[in-house]
Amino acid sequence: MPCLGVLGGMGPAATVDFMSKLVALTPASHDQEHLPVLVASLPQIPDRSAAILGQGKDPLPALLEGLRLLNQAGVGLITIPCATSHHWYDNLSAQSKAPILHIARATAQRIAQGGHAMLLATRGTIASGFFRDELIAQGMTVEIPDPETEQITVDDCIRLVKEGRAPSANQLMERLLERADARGIRTFILGCTELPLAARGIARDGLTLIDSTLELARQAVEHGLRQGWNRQPIVDVPMIDHPG
Amino acid sequence: MPCLGVLGGMGPAATVDFMSKLVALTPASHDQEHLPVLVASLPQIPDRSAAILGQGKDPLPALLEGLRLLNQAGVGLITIPCATSHHWYDNLSAQSKAPILHIARATAQRIAQGGHAMLLATRGTIASGFFRDELIAQGMTVEIPDPETEQITVDDCIRLVKEGRAPSANQLMERLLERADARGIRTFILGCTELPLAARGIARDGLTLIDSTLELARQAVEHGLRQGWNRQPIVDVPMIDHPG
Repeated sequence: MPCLGVLGGMGPAATVDFMSKLVALTPASHDQEHLPVLVASLPQIPDRSAAILGQGKDPLPALLEGLRLLNQAGVGLITIPCATSHHWYDNLSAQSKAPILHIARATAQRIAQGGHAMLLATRGTIASGFFRDELIAQGMTVEIPDPETEQITVDDCIRLVKEGRAPSANQLMERLLERADARGIRTFILGCTELPLAARGIARDGLTLIDSTLELARQAVEHGLRQGWNRQPIVDVPMIDHPG
Repeated sequence: MPCLGVLGGMGPAATVDFMSKLVALTPASHDQEHLPVLVASLPQIPDRSAAILGQGKDPLPALLEGLRLLNQAGVGLITIPCATSHHWYDNLSAQSKAPILHIARATAQRIAQGGHAMLLATRGTIASGFFRDELIAQGMTVEIPDPETEQITVDDCIRLVKEGRAPSANQLMERLLERADARGIRTFILGCTELPLAARGIARDGLTLIDSTLELARQAVEHGLRQGWNRQPIVDVPMIDHPG
């Protein structure tokens, strides 16, 4: 049965946020209009950022194992609601039968040509450069948080969300955005899937937050609806009165 | 890889709520301490309540197909965050290699011996009787909503959540609980997984809401932690510096 595949658990709360966005973005008045989704939430996948920085286990074998599981079940498209893991995107894509959406590309494609933004992401994503490259390809100029000050706050926000302390992350995010605003930065790319949870409810005149989780979900829902995955029965059964 | 299996999509928002409760109930300070979960969210499974009432397609073949998919992937325990589908529990259990938790049993086991409660659930669940039986087995006396008045509100709450209109459901639920309170009912079993979303944020002195989604999640997390599913690597990889 063709359906959407999600390689998740990185972290688990970010995967739940992604799934909740899939549901919210699907126009539906009853269950059966929603898209079928297979989610492998595998939090044991080694830390992606640490690996990029040369400080941890290689997550690639575990990522590939997750893809194998999804492909074996016959999913038609794969999404990975973890930005940092896209450092290995080419490797993952080459070994997946189902195409994999690219979270940074989905985010960049949402942005009108040009503009200036600060990329908020893990240190691994920043060091890797893949996310910045996608934004630059879209004509943006991209600012990176100061590694000695602002990035420490970004790291803390991500850590707090992973610890289940989103309200504390929210306070830190609010201050980070205020200080950057004082320097004239108005647009922020939430380029790590924990960060939309840290930024939940933050809104201000002139502030633009681009949510990579939301943009990945948007492309996934558009693809699934176009393919009609919500119009196919799981098994063909005749219309009968069930004996109860 | 042994992990928790979730047969979901009934409805999709209820499955997201269940997953969010799995995450919240797991003591974890980083991703890797969370439980691995495989979720088959299959909203195309025919309407369970309609089938019990003799008004719709039999969902059993589609439910079994979902179980087959989860068992094939090797899950160690299955949860179904949809109360009504437990009408077919014996049939499902008999055909699943992995044991299946029973949502009504998990809910009843949470209740201290005895007491009086109103069971809020789909008309299918009410007609089937399985949920009431589990509560009675726990020594409770169980009241059922008046089918001509209160149950219409319960039906509306469930429908509104499935339509993505939880705030409207919330208003209806608030009034339903107030009226029942005026009749002396203080304890309510949220015996349909859409209803915790309709009741979100409702709290009053003396009011007890027993959330079946939460109790199912609690038993699932306890089982998974006891089995150590969060302590097993997905694949064995040595500690190396990744080339990046």
